[in-house]
This record gives sequence, C-alpha cells and structure tokens, in this order.
Amino acid sequence: MVKQKISAAPSVRRLPSYLHTVRQLQKEAGEYISGTLIADALNLEPIQVRKDLAITGIIGKPKKGYPVEALINAIEGFLGWDTLRDAVLVGVGNLGMALMGYEEFRYHGLRLIAAFDRNPKKIGLRIHGVPVLSIDTADIQIRSFGVKTAILTVPGPFAQETADALTKAGIEGIWNFTNVKLKVPDTVAVQKEDLSSGYAMLCVKMQAKRLEENGFKPR
Amino acid sequence: MVKQKISAAPSVRRLPSYLHTVRQLQKEAGEYISGTLIADALNLEPIQVRKDLAITGIIGKPKKGYPVEALINAIEGFLGWDTLRDAVLVGVGNLGMALMGYEEFRYHGLRLIAAFDRNPKKIGLRIHGVPVLSIDTADIQIRSFGVKTAILTVPGPFAQETADALTKAGIEGIWNFTNVKLKVPDTVAVQKEDLSSGYAMLCVKMQAKRLEENGFKPR
Repeated sequence: MVKQKISAAPSVRRLPSYLHTVRQLQKEAGEYISGTLIADALNLEPIQVRKDLAITGIIGKPKKGYPVEALINAIEGFLGWDTLRDAVLVGVGNLGMALMGYEEFRYHGLRLIAAFDRNPKKIGLRIHGVPVLSIDTADIQIRSFGVKTAILTVPGPFAQETADALTKAGIEGIWNFTNVKLKVPDTVAVQKEDLSSGYAMLCVKMQAKRLEENGFKPR
Repeated sequence: MVKQKISAAPSVRRLPSYLHTVRQLQKEAGEYISGTLIADALNLEPIQVRKDLAITGIIGKPKKGYPVEALINAIEGFLGWDTLRDAVLVGVGNLGMALMGYEEFRYHGLRLIAAFDRNPKKIGLRIHGVPVLSIDTADIQIRSFGVKTAILTVPGPFAQETADALTKAGIEGIWNFTNVKLKVPDTVAVQKEDLSSGYAMLCVKMQAKRLEENGFKPR
C-alpha cells in the first residue's frame, strides 16, 4: 500500500479555526486583518499563524496584515470548501444523528444528501432534514448521485464490510468514526476520527497544570 | 493568560492508537514486540514509532523490541490512564448520548458517574448506565464527588456560562465539544474537539489522491 503523507497536517487541522475566527473578526477588522489579531484570538504565536496560513499560498502585507476576503478565499480554496460537496452518512446511531445535526458542515460546503441504516424503524425518517434510507439501496443511490464522500458511523463489527461496499459504489473519501482501521484501495482516502486522541491531550494538559501549580516548569 | 504548550502534541495524540494496537498484537507477539510490527500495523515509519514511544520514557531493546507489559504500563502511566478518573458530562443531546455510550472510555480509566441536563424529560433517565441529573444539582454533585473532569456537550450559546459554573464547582479539565472558545482560569485545562479539523484533513487527502492519480507526485 502506498503510504499517504499529508505535509503540514497540524497546520491543515488548524485551518478551520482560522476560517471561523477570521469570519468572526471580519466586521471589526475592515479590509485587512493582522496576524497578531488572529494569533491573539486563537492563543497562538504570530509566527505560527504566518506559517500555517502560508500553506494556502497567502502572504500578509507588512504593517497591514492579510486582506480579509482573499484570506477567506485562500483557506476555502485550499480545503476545497469553496464548492459544494455531497456526502452520505452510514449508520444512524446517536453519533450519526449528532453529525446529521452538526451545523458547521454547512459552512464547509458539506451537504449530507442521505443517511443509510438497516433498522426498519429508522428508514423513512428525516433527521435534521436528511432522509434515512435503507442500507440496501446505498449502492444504487451513491452511484446515481455520484457521491464521493461518506461518513462512517456504523458499529465496529460492520465497519470493514460497509467500507468495502462504499468503495465499490464509487466513494473516494471515508470519514471513519469507527474504532476500526479500515483497509481500502490506494485510490480511497480515509480520515479516522479517534476521540481517544483528544482525551489523551486533555489528560496530559491536566497533568501539566498540576505540575505547574506545584512549582514545576512545564516542559 | 499563561499560554500552555504541550510538547509533542502529535505524539500524544497517537499514543491511544499505540495502546490499542499493542494490546491487539499482545497475544501473537509474546514477551517482546518489535517497533517495525507496530509501525506496520499503524502505517507509520519505524523511526516515528521510536520517537513517539520515547516520550513515555520507554526505549526498545535492539533486535528484541519493546517489552509488551512494560510498554503498555509506560503509555498508560504517561497518560494517567492507569488510575480510574471520574467525570461528568453536561448536555445530553445526541452527541452527549453518543459519548455516554462510547465503550473505549472504559479502557482509558474514564468513568462517567453522572450526566446533567436541563430538560425535565431527560432528568431521571439512565443512558448506557449513566444517570441523568438536573443541571441545577451539578454544583453540589461535582463538589461532593470531588470530580475534576467534565465533558461539555451543551449547545454553543450555553457553553461559556456552563464552563464558568463547572470551574466554580472545582472542575480542572474540560473536554469541550462545543464550537465556543472557552475562557477559563489559568488552572483549568481545556481540550477543544473540533470535528472540522478532521474534515479538513479528509478533504486535503482526497485532493492529494486525485493529484496522484493524475500523475502528480504528492508533496
């Protein structure tokens, strides 16, 4: 399997926060926004902000900062969020339902056009406006709509077989919320969301705070 | 505000996957597990594995690899996952419910002892074994149990006021699933989960795959 490396992954991960912050500051900022203002709002170093935003191809002007409109366009363009992207969700459990109602997606050009489940009680419902369809129709629906992006929220034991079916139907990107490390063809991108990662960070931060309070310098 | 930096954040984020993988490979591996085996399972470079695991203080033996038991203990110890940690959840919506049923938490020493909500229809329920209590009792409950960790899944407009109340009740770490950047005292750790970050990564990976297929070299 060809290993896929995304350079500057931490910078990419921060881009949505930049987008959110710049949009929020847009009214007060006027035509230009300074890197320092963005850095303050996000609790980052100004040099980090410059480096992160540089991956989108934009460079600020000395003393003026970034042109706001161009900055928003650069981030959205880099992420491909400037065009509408249709997606389906598979597995309408609590997490699936939470994601179906996640309002931020709209701002990122992500449009959930359908959700699939095998539970007859759920099939036919509309949740946050998204229709729930039978998993048995997923293949034909994905093909006919030409959808390339799928959000996977099925229980772990069904994860691989569902991913196989999605790939066969033409899905090119799977946002994987299961705890299974999926095997997919080289042409398919997978992003695994691991809640445990965030929890690990919280634990380490809490330990660091306690050490600080006890007079230790943070590492 | 003192800026808190966690060195090696990407390594910390990967530790839960190492723990998961080493536990899975434990049976076949025997007493020692090689860094290469771990690297293959996680699709990482062996040098990256060595660097990541080194933050926990463990170092592999040449030709033998890592002693499995000691490796598990080192990771769990570093994360503080070797002792039980009580936590509360605030905001029993779909995401809250999904997290209440998230089985991995058990393996990380995280024990949800209560969830809080303001909806009378939810108060008194048990969801995945966790009792839902009135938000009005949160302060007294948190104080009496001495809970230090909270998971925040309330709607955005209630996020800051809830965080204020939690901090006042003695909470030292907030796992923030809202889209609000919380203001908390210096002594409180916050880990913000931003689903948009993962989606940004998926989009960039999908773009990279398409470029590769069209004959471009990945950056």
